[in-house]
Amino acid sequence: MHASIPPNTVEIDLGDRSYPILIGGSLLDAPTTYADLPPATAALVVTNSTVSPLYAQRLRTALQGKFRSIHTVVLSDGEAHKTWQTLNLIFDSLLAHECDRKTVLFALGGGVVGDMTGFAAASYMRGVPFVQVPTTLLAQVDSSVGGKTAINHPLGKNMIGAFYQPLKVVCDLDTLQTLPPRELSAGLAEVIKYGPIADLVFFDWIEANIDRLLARDPAAMAHAVKRSCEIKAWVVAQDERDYGLRAILNFGHTFGHAIEAGLGFGEWLHGEAVGCGMVMAANLSQRLGLVDAALVRRLTALIQRAGLPIRGPQLLAGSIAHGAAQTGAGSSRKLSNADIYLAHMRVDKKAEAGEIKFVVIDGPARASVRSAPDALVREVIDACCDGR
Amino acid sequence: MHASIPPNTVEIDLGDRSYPILIGGSLLDAPTTYADLPPATAALVVTNSTVSPLYAQRLRTALQGKFRSIHTVVLSDGEAHKTWQTLNLIFDSLLAHECDRKTVLFALGGGVVGDMTGFAAASYMRGVPFVQVPTTLLAQVDSSVGGKTAINHPLGKNMIGAFYQPLKVVCDLDTLQTLPPRELSAGLAEVIKYGPIADLVFFDWIEANIDRLLARDPAAMAHAVKRSCEIKAWVVAQDERDYGLRAILNFGHTFGHAIEAGLGFGEWLHGEAVGCGMVMAANLSQRLGLVDAALVRRLTALIQRAGLPIRGPQLLAGSIAHGAAQTGAGSSRKLSNADIYLAHMRVDKKAEAGEIKFVVIDGPARASVRSAPDALVREVIDACCDGR
Repeated sequence: MHASIPPNTVEIDLGDRSYPILIGGSLLDAPTTYADLPPATAALVVTNSTVSPLYAQRLRTALQGKFRSIHTVVLSDGEAHKTWQTLNLIFDSLLAHECDRKTVLFALGGGVVGDMTGFAAASYMRGVPFVQVPTTLLAQVDSSVGGKTAINHPLGKNMIGAFYQPLKVVCDLDTLQTLPPRELSAGLAEVIKYGPIADLVFFDWIEANIDRLLARDPAAMAHAVKRSCEIKAWVVAQDERDYGLRAILNFGHTFGHAIEAGLGFGEWLHGEAVGCGMVMAANLSQRLGLVDAALVRRLTALIQRAGLPIRGPQLLAGSIAHGAAQTGAGSSRKLSNADIYLAHMRVDKKAEAGEIKFVVIDGPARASVRSAPDALVREVIDACCDGR
Repeated sequence: MHASIPPNTVEIDLGDRSYPILIGGSLLDAPTTYADLPPATAALVVTNSTVSPLYAQRLRTALQGKFRSIHTVVLSDGEAHKTWQTLNLIFDSLLAHECDRKTVLFALGGGVVGDMTGFAAASYMRGVPFVQVPTTLLAQVDSSVGGKTAINHPLGKNMIGAFYQPLKVVCDLDTLQTLPPRELSAGLAEVIKYGPIADLVFFDWIEANIDRLLARDPAAMAHAVKRSCEIKAWVVAQDERDYGLRAILNFGHTFGHAIEAGLGFGEWLHGEAVGCGMVMAANLSQRLGLVDAALVRRLTALIQRAGLPIRGPQLLAGSIAHGAAQTGAGSSRKLSNADIYLAHMRVDKKAEAGEIKFVVIDGPARASVRSAPDALVREVIDACCDGR
């Protein structure tokens, strides 16, 4: 389809867990893409009801010379299905087909399919190999790279999971042509993220090329995916298990996860919540005196041009655990929007002893993790969210 | 209680995942046992309804100086509860209490509690630290050592899990005094296992001391636990992730897991199924010409003296996946007992491409893993199981 874009490879360097990210056109249905996988009798393609009719048969055909039997599981589409119940459909299929410990799982779809297939691969018989075949921009630039796998718990996003690296990530840029506009914008949120945290040249480039990206220009998409993966690879290679540096990839995610959980998973797309979360995190960075208003305005404008929400929503009081909101004013007081945001953020994985940690911008292309006074965070929430 | 037995330490040597197994009396409620754990705000004690009234408060008291808040989750007792639904109670509690990524989980109970707590620790926020405090003989000599964690799937035992090592294993021998006789016998199955696969001197010692063990003589128990842990530590250090040698620890488990799944989890105790499974695996070894009848008789007699079943049960046809039994005679033929055993064993984790792998004894204190003709396995099942 876009054979004019030569394929690129970005290596994730993790010792004996190293693997390549292939980026290019016409990769998904080329048998050569999968030729170097270890021998196995069976493969299981995990996909969703939206992606399956577009690409499942093409992937199966490409795998036919490699595996004696190829099974398929089609999950319901959307973040709302990133649950144990849906995950169990993968285990049911593996066991019903007597799949052994060498069976290779293929995650064909977006971030939800990738995260669930990865966790299923990490857990089935305590670990089987898997390959990521991300078909959304968000999954190509973020969720399918780096080995974070998980499902959601009603009380928190990605709370149950594993660090588990794939054998390979196959980013077929052609699949981005079939992406719904809303998914394209959601993916651009994670692309934009890499600018302020790591690379101002890339930030400038995204600003200059946002219209080409929205028009899915193949060369622009190729650069955006490659540069995003390079930055992510550099961070992950230094901190695979998220003890320090890797947290900067969570810029916008502390507020973003609160939005996702606080509206009910699936209401906003993950990328939409991250886009809006970056506006809030930039606002917090400014209130902490770390960046000036110009950068916040610039980032906010770019997020808006990408088609993403820049105003936070009112969250649902019923979304938090009973008694989790410490209002400090007795249980009879009605919870404010900021109370609900704070309650969600206190169970964020970066939190320590109930103290919320935020990824802030503290210089040009530099991010760090720090706490902030609750009162200041409330100001951010009140300033960045639409009133009731 | 038995202060005359000095505490021992067996080290599991796994690089940066190394940890000690403490073995002795009066360990569980000594604050010094836990003094070297990393600092954390919260601890979560996971136990079951049988063990909780005996030991939970004593453990909590011992932990009080170390953790600001100590929560407890009490699970239903038994293998039938080694399910996702029960596992989720641990996640619910962690999230309801806003437990962060440094929270230490304590598994206080037998193998089921240990396996589930370990898998919860492996998965909560993609990994939090945990400590095993096994209170059954089986857990002290086997399941709490070596980092295999899992839950069951209706179609197979321990099918969903992780390799995840604890910070420490605390084997308080005093807890064995409160063990029901059936649990004591089940634990002896895993003790006996170490003889034929690794140590004929230990095999001789168990034979000579089986009455002392059944009488819970503290010195005999101390030796049995220590020697079992030493052998397991030696095997696990060479093959943490079960690529080869470690499979010998599964002697009796291929048949045993079929018994557990085929009767419904919890009907037979795991150790009972392993005891009977060892009789069947020894019988297979003899039919393969690897050992003589004398060793099979000797092992069978010891298993019987330990109070364990030596005749296999008839399994339930409804326990296998629809269509899983390849009877080779059309779907209308009634499934034989051997058909059902074989169907369960084909999804064993050691199986490859539908070929079942058995741990066999092929010399004095030497075990290996190999396949066997279905016809021969059917002979073993028919010879070792009671008729309908």
